[in-house]
Amino acid sequence: MSIYLDNAATSFPKPDQVYQAALQAMQQIGGSPGRGGYGRALDASRVMLDTREAAAQLVNCADSSRIVFTSNATMALNLATMGTLQPGDHVITSSMEHNSLLRPLFMLEKTGVELTVVPADSQGLVDPDQIRQALRKNTRMIAVAHVSNVTGGIQDIRQIAGIAQAAGVLMLLDAAQSAGTLPLDMQALGIDLLAAPGHKGLMGPQGTGFLAVAPGVPLKPIIAGGTGSSSDQDHQPDTFPEGFEAGTHNLSGIAGLGAGLSFLLETGIARIGQHEQQLAEHARQRLEGMAGCRLFGPVTPEQRSGVVSLAIEGWDPSILAFYLDREYGIAVRAGLHCAPRAHRTIGSYPTGTLRISPGWFNTLADVETCCDALISITQKGHP
Amino acid sequence: MSIYLDNAATSFPKPDQVYQAALQAMQQIGGSPGRGGYGRALDASRVMLDTREAAAQLVNCADSSRIVFTSNATMALNLATMGTLQPGDHVITSSMEHNSLLRPLFMLEKTGVELTVVPADSQGLVDPDQIRQALRKNTRMIAVAHVSNVTGGIQDIRQIAGIAQAAGVLMLLDAAQSAGTLPLDMQALGIDLLAAPGHKGLMGPQGTGFLAVAPGVPLKPIIAGGTGSSSDQDHQPDTFPEGFEAGTHNLSGIAGLGAGLSFLLETGIARIGQHEQQLAEHARQRLEGMAGCRLFGPVTPEQRSGVVSLAIEGWDPSILAFYLDREYGIAVRAGLHCAPRAHRTIGSYPTGTLRISPGWFNTLADVETCCDALISITQKGHP
Repeated sequence: MSIYLDNAATSFPKPDQVYQAALQAMQQIGGSPGRGGYGRALDASRVMLDTREAAAQLVNCADSSRIVFTSNATMALNLATMGTLQPGDHVITSSMEHNSLLRPLFMLEKTGVELTVVPADSQGLVDPDQIRQALRKNTRMIAVAHVSNVTGGIQDIRQIAGIAQAAGVLMLLDAAQSAGTLPLDMQALGIDLLAAPGHKGLMGPQGTGFLAVAPGVPLKPIIAGGTGSSSDQDHQPDTFPEGFEAGTHNLSGIAGLGAGLSFLLETGIARIGQHEQQLAEHARQRLEGMAGCRLFGPVTPEQRSGVVSLAIEGWDPSILAFYLDREYGIAVRAGLHCAPRAHRTIGSYPTGTLRISPGWFNTLADVETCCDALISITQKGHP
Repeated sequence: MSIYLDNAATSFPKPDQVYQAALQAMQQIGGSPGRGGYGRALDASRVMLDTREAAAQLVNCADSSRIVFTSNATMALNLATMGTLQPGDHVITSSMEHNSLLRPLFMLEKTGVELTVVPADSQGLVDPDQIRQALRKNTRMIAVAHVSNVTGGIQDIRQIAGIAQAAGVLMLLDAAQSAGTLPLDMQALGIDLLAAPGHKGLMGPQGTGFLAVAPGVPLKPIIAGGTGSSSDQDHQPDTFPEGFEAGTHNLSGIAGLGAGLSFLLETGIARIGQHEQQLAEHARQRLEGMAGCRLFGPVTPEQRSGVVSLAIEGWDPSILAFYLDREYGIAVRAGLHCAPRAHRTIGSYPTGTLRISPGWFNTLADVETCCDALISITQKGHP
């Protein structure tokens, strides 16, 4: 028996139609979208278009052609930052960010982009006022994650996006941990750039993701190559979407992502998000009484999503994860989760936390089993 | 019935084990390599390692950890050029290159990299002497394709790589059209950087590719993000391979690529290459007597691989491709094939050519049917 509770890394399993769509694209379609005018290439283009439209619907992006497919959210965040920021621009981010956002910003800092990393509080929450206070004349962007991958804490995106809009600066939302579980409305919130992975909450295969770019937001390509159109131009075109999707697409991945998005839109984001949150809350309740157990993240339940991050006194989280896997077949993630500054912020550096992240296909029994196992391991003590 | 003859764009179908491996990785493994210490994550790491080793074996790269997985050959070429060239460096390339190599170079030219595009002859062949003559004191790289995607012509890579080695400059080989059909030996030829797509000759799924980097060749990451290791560093590590593979991998694609590589190594590159070349030669023989038909590419058969590119007087290639598809279910590609300068070089600009590219699973009968159809379409004349 095995229980998978690492959906914050990659959702697993996927709805069956995701596997089928990915396989069908490989086995039946085979062609490359925009490369050839024959039936298979047109079928491939149709798959791309359908997925693009479903993604646009999910995040309420006004123009589906401005959904740029990427190989993951990391690539989307690199494009969003490197494709907009120039030397001399200032960008504001937070200490809760994943390396997929921080590292591109540190890379840009070396080229002359100015960077302010606003510290979050010990609950991992960013104070919008601190972001407002960090604004400068040359601020060009505010870039934050909707939900922390370490704590599951939900940032006050409405306020932060409002500050960006009032200041006339770009708002980049890293929706890696919220896409598919929390409502995302680019138009209502005034989000200019939204990065999402395909393989987490959107239930698509690994190797997929997208950057949604609001109409009017200018973007420069950061990667160049064949685009299947404007082929006679020496320079990379900046037309959406193909100018930002050089090279052959991950068609089977995108087909699977399309099926994942359909599943989400049918099932309902709210239902999925609530289910995951309820399972996480249940785990918190089971564990908060446990001797030596420290739970991280917001104290207000409404600011928490479907992730539980914890540390147990006297135990390295990676040892706990090892025993959970070996003795109980339970998969959870331990360590820094590629977000070292988040752990410094919440006080779990350098060993990090043990992160339990249930998904749509998990049951209360899965979470119970995991909590029982944790209690049992720590009661037995170190072997 | 349908006949697929566009293997130079994407090979189709794939060996059955490719579909199975890709599906199995999605459905059974699910985890992310390097993200978690539990069984699924370790299984994922094993898939990655196996594929990396098979790729290293295929191109004779001395160190399999220097096989960097990318989403396609385009991304590998962007990394190979942007990750090595600095303002003030000079790079030599040819007029036969695909936009996946030329466009990154034109992008770099804007940042102060100097570029010489050596013109090929009307057969599409690059004269190594012209490359030698283009060398300057600040030349840092020679970057050419092994095989033209437009003509199928094979460049004299041994000589060109020898020139690079003698001059002490980097040799970047775009193996997009040769990987899987021609022998590739980085060590024997002295190739520093080799870019390959996974979804063409290597028979893997779309969304895969790699850059092989010879030991000792320095490379800078161009994309930053989570690497699953060195997580506490603010800056992107330049350790192979993870420093160059930020973000979650396309695991199912890489699993499929691994199965494709196994298939190739078992079947034998020479056998596959010969089969494709024989089919292409057969098409040439059938078509060269046809009224108004012009065949492009090298006149010496030994310099030709499994691609036939042609134009028929009075016919736009895209009209021919349209009829082949609609009336006969035959998929071939027409147009510029993302290589406009190649068409200017061989004299087929701006309408481009009709490209017939058989694959391992095509038969002589497929090629016969395609030639019969072409003859029939043109004899009937425009409707």
